[in-house]
This record gives sequence, C-alpha cells and structure tokens, in this order.
Amino acid sequence: MTNPTAAMLVIGDEILSGRTRDANMHHLAGELAEVGITMAEVRIVADDAEAIINAVRALSAAYDTVFTSGGIGPTHDDITADCMAQAFGQSIDVRDDARAILQAHYDKSGTQMNEARLRMARIPADADLIENPVSSAPGFKIENVYVMAGVPSVFKAMVASVLPTLTGGAPLISKTLTVHRGEGDIAGPFGALAAAYPALSMGSYPFQRDGKYGATLVIRGQDTAMLDEAMAKLAEAFA
Amino acid sequence: MTNPTAAMLVIGDEILSGRTRDANMHHLAGELAEVGITMAEVRIVADDAEAIINAVRALSAAYDTVFTSGGIGPTHDDITADCMAQAFGQSIDVRDDARAILQAHYDKSGTQMNEARLRMARIPADADLIENPVSSAPGFKIENVYVMAGVPSVFKAMVASVLPTLTGGAPLISKTLTVHRGEGDIAGPFGALAAAYPALSMGSYPFQRDGKYGATLVIRGQDTAMLDEAMAKLAEAFA
Repeated sequence: MTNPTAAMLVIGDEILSGRTRDANMHHLAGELAEVGITMAEVRIVADDAEAIINAVRALSAAYDTVFTSGGIGPTHDDITADCMAQAFGQSIDVRDDARAILQAHYDKSGTQMNEARLRMARIPADADLIENPVSSAPGFKIENVYVMAGVPSVFKAMVASVLPTLTGGAPLISKTLTVHRGEGDIAGPFGALAAAYPALSMGSYPFQRDGKYGATLVIRGQDTAMLDEAMAKLAEAFA
Repeated sequence: MTNPTAAMLVIGDEILSGRTRDANMHHLAGELAEVGITMAEVRIVADDAEAIINAVRALSAAYDTVFTSGGIGPTHDDITADCMAQAFGQSIDVRDDARAILQAHYDKSGTQMNEARLRMARIPADADLIENPVSSAPGFKIENVYVMAGVPSVFKAMVASVLPTLTGGAPLISKTLTVHRGEGDIAGPFGALAAAYPALSMGSYPFQRDGKYGATLVIRGQDTAMLDEAMAKLAEAFA
C-alpha cells in the first residue's frame, strides 16, 4: 500500500537570500502527512524563469501532485503564472473568470483596477482557478500542479481548499521516544528493530541539551497496530 | 561581475514529514549572502539513496559549490556518506584519519568505540575531512560538495570552518522600504524602477497586519552607490 506522492516548489529570491524563513513548506508537509500523501521532495528556486520552468517540469513528471508557492502577485518579480504556461505549453492572458473575481473584490473595497492588478488575472488557458478567500486573487491548477500564493495566510487558505479534493492514502502516523543516551549506543538495537519492521520508517534525531546528549527516536507508518508493537519493543530496548 | 553560485541539499525524512522545521538552510543562506556567494537552489529529499544520489549529482554539475546537511550519524538511517561515494564513483570504508579523531574524542569522555560509532569514520576515499568542533565526527568535502551534519549546532560550526576557505564575490547588500499601500498601487512605479536598474534585484513582499495591507520592498545588489541611488528614488516615489 503505497501512498500518493507530492512535491513542493518554493519560488522566491527572498528565501534563498536568507531574508525570509519559509513557513509554507512546514505547513504543507504537516497537512499532507495527515491526509496520507507522501511529501517526497521540495525544491526552492529563485525568481528566474528558466529555473522555475525546469523545476516544475521535473517535479510534475516525477510525482503525483506538485504544489508551488510564490510569485503570483502584481509586481514585476511575479513571473510564476507565465512560467507555468510556458512549462506546459499553454497560452496565457487575462481571463474573464479571474478578472470578474478581482473586479468584485475591488468594487467592494472601493479600489481601482489598474494594469498591475489585472496581471493577477493572467491565468494559463486550460487551468482551473483555486479560490483565495483572503485577498481574492486566485491560484490555479495546471496539469498536476497547484499554483498558490507565497503569503502564508493565503497559502494556508488555498491549501485548505485544495486538500479535500485530493485522494490520499492512509495517514502517516508518527510515534516518538526520547532516549538520553548517545546515538552510538542507540544505533545497534534501533537498527535491528528497523530491519525487523521494513514497512515502518524509523529515524533517529540527535540533540544536545544542557550539555547532555540524547536522541529523539521516531517511528512512522500507516498501520497503527504494527506501530504500537514496534514502539513497545523500542521502549523495552531502552528501558 | 557574477558571484559564484551554490546550492544546498537537505537530507532527511523529518523535514518532509513536517516533524521538524529546517533551520540550516536559513542559516547558510544568510552566511553565503555575506561572503558574496549566490545561493541559487535548495533541494530537500528523503533518506532514500536514489533520491540523494540523483540530487547531489544534478546540483554538483549545475553549481560551483554544494552543501549538504543530514544523514552522517551512526544510525541505520544515516546513509549520506555511502550515497556520496556512489554518486562520485569513489570507494568508501572506515578511514584511519577519521577513526583517530573519533577515538581521541571517545577516550576523553570515557566512551567505548563500537560498530555504530565506527560508521561515522566511513569516509569516501578521496574526500577531505571537515572539522567538527562540537561532537568530533567529521564532515567531508567530495568533489565540489561539502557534506555536513544535520544537527544545527554542528552544521553551524562546520559552515564556520568551511566558509573562510571559499572565494566569494562582492557581498550581496539588501535595503528595505516598507510601504503601506496595496501591491497593486506599488507595482507600476516599482517595476519601472526595476527596469531602470537591471544590475539590481528588486522584490516586493506583501503583508497584512491589523487588517491593513502593505509590502516590504527589497532592493539587492553589490554596488553600494547604485543601491543608495535606487533606494532614494524608491523613497521619493512612495513618499
């Protein structure tokens, strides 16, 4: 029983330059785990057309679903929509359905439509719109790629509207045991347990707190009974 | 004047599953900007040999320098060193120089060497060791790839020892202006300014605070005088 796979493409100079710390990836990873979709890879690229196009093509071909964040606003550095159209060989222009959504939003707030705002209605010809309940400018789905905003509140809202439409597998369950020994003492018994349960994924994450070494041992899997059994053996090994 | 490029490969299930929020990427991005190396791409992959090998080969070929984090500890899920050897066609075994470093460290703390700990002395044949002042187990440099630990304190220490050995270009300087208008009103003048200064990189990062919209406008570049000139025009445009 293999779960569907997903990848994320984060688009934006601000993360690669160290100015901003990405929050969207962490959010999406947690949400996908809950609905039983395996996040298999993340790529972060700059606001560079060639880099965006190559990355989205590679991820779209390799995984069931791709999520992108960033680059769909009104400013000159927002080039994601055009890149997506080019990556998948679709034409792109201002679309009436997207323009109507924006116009209704601006009418309510008494804001004037202008050329920059209209850029946010540029959507590839065959894409389906993704609702943006926060600031109205829509995302879109093109092929197996969900193109979403980079602003965390908008990204979250778009993820919330997209996730119920996806078919996941069994949710990924994690159980954790903290062991206050060095990883060098943990590795033998833990490795033997991992070998005995190939259907489970086991990881050791070392830490150092107040000068003491330890590790957080994590077992992940989809079968609750098997997970409980393995956790009981793990606890016994390090009691 | 183009700066050298770098990429980062983050290795670890724990980030893709949403359990852990990566801190190393943000740290490295900031450090590289300061020494004038352009972080051009980041990839995050699972503890999966094929994924690690394919990613490091692609990044090593595409960029001047690659940094990896994660997967060099003593437990069964630490497969990075073996993957690097395979990716670059080198043999791998316990190496005397790495073993001596570990042995000295364990002798001091009265810890017994064992099979698991010895795994951390497995280093590809032609790699150069990277010092680990925190917990002794070394990282290594193979081809143009710096292979480092995932534990943030160790990762930081390794970055600090590696960075002075790299030749960067002019540091990337950022200047920021916060504008309390919608991006739709900012986009026109800001885009015109960006077009007038092709040597600078300009980005708009919208926010919503207390129900009010605004954007942080960032100008990045290497020429301080040009940066000051553009910032003055930007401030004038949104005064």
